[in-house]
Amino acid sequence: MEPEGVSRGSIRPVAQLHESFIIAVDDEGLLLIDQHVAHERILFDKFRRKETERALESQNLLLPETVDLSPAQSQAFEIVEEELSSIGFGLMRLSGRTVAIKSIPTDLPAAEVHNLFAEILDNIDLEKRGSGKATVRDDIAASLACKAAVKINMKLTLEKMHWLIDRLLTTSSPTTCPHGRPVILRLSMKDIERGFHRT
Amino acid sequence: MEPEGVSRGSIRPVAQLHESFIIAVDDEGLLLIDQHVAHERILFDKFRRKETERALESQNLLLPETVDLSPAQSQAFEIVEEELSSIGFGLMRLSGRTVAIKSIPTDLPAAEVHNLFAEILDNIDLEKRGSGKATVRDDIAASLACKAAVKINMKLTLEKMHWLIDRLLTTSSPTTCPHGRPVILRLSMKDIERGFHRT
Repeated sequence: MEPEGVSRGSIRPVAQLHESFIIAVDDEGLLLIDQHVAHERILFDKFRRKETERALESQNLLLPETVDLSPAQSQAFEIVEEELSSIGFGLMRLSGRTVAIKSIPTDLPAAEVHNLFAEILDNIDLEKRGSGKATVRDDIAASLACKAAVKINMKLTLEKMHWLIDRLLTTSSPTTCPHGRPVILRLSMKDIERGFHRT
Repeated sequence: MEPEGVSRGSIRPVAQLHESFIIAVDDEGLLLIDQHVAHERILFDKFRRKETERALESQNLLLPETVDLSPAQSQAFEIVEEELSSIGFGLMRLSGRTVAIKSIPTDLPAAEVHNLFAEILDNIDLEKRGSGKATVRDDIAASLACKAAVKINMKLTLEKMHWLIDRLLTTSSPTTCPHGRPVILRLSMKDIERGFHRT
């Protein structure tokens, strides 16, 4: 069973395996799709694409969330503030090292915004200050995508599986996640028939 | 992907792959079941078991089918007549080498009875005349099972898949067919997680 290219035929989800992997079929055989990394790939592309397309949608928080930054986080914030705004964060620096988060990208779970925000800032390598926007943007996109993606051990409806597969196939690289892990494993009919001694 | 033992947990069919293999899941991972050889194994056990249990059920043919035997087939018929009767065939020798088939085992497709009957007789090795009933019975059971089993490229309902799996698990050897081919291929969660670089 090897990670492989996606089929040209249409991929049809049939069930979920242990609430973690999507079982799907297409003209060429059986596919297993890692639901977390599939969603991660979709979100990563979405967050990274924002500069070339219209602004991403935001959701307003019911109550703005205030965050007290450490000195290092405060430095990181200066680097990423603009990027975060263009991705859909509504941010306002209050007195000193306190920041108010008024809105967040629609894909993010509101309950995790505090942790997520701190994580992004902690992950910014201050040495990268001069390494250009694209690198910073990719780092942020990867952090957000990982946090916002559906998790392993989470039940999905068949509709959600369809959505994930349809969106996955429109991404720049449907077969690997931003960290290089495979998104799709494929068992071809030839492999299966060989397994059953049918060839 | 290796043929392996069946799980102690319950096996749940989720879909059919290319109308030939049953996709199923259990506690230990994913299973693929070859629908033809699974049914073959079930029927083989059934036809072979007949001596130790009550007689198998017959279905009467609307019109008795008469078959003209070749000299070799006629010799073979003498060897297997008793076995065929105990399996559920209602047979009557008419004049010369003509035999009337009045009833057949319930699992057999009535439309194929003529071919099936000829095939059984042709497959009886006349040299085996002295090799004992058990061998003859196994030969007949294998012929009948292969012919009567659902074929590859045949759509199954989810109910039929459930039935096949339930019955398969009660057979003497659920993982291999009478000809030694695997019935079940298994992909364990460990294999799958390894494939996705999750371990």
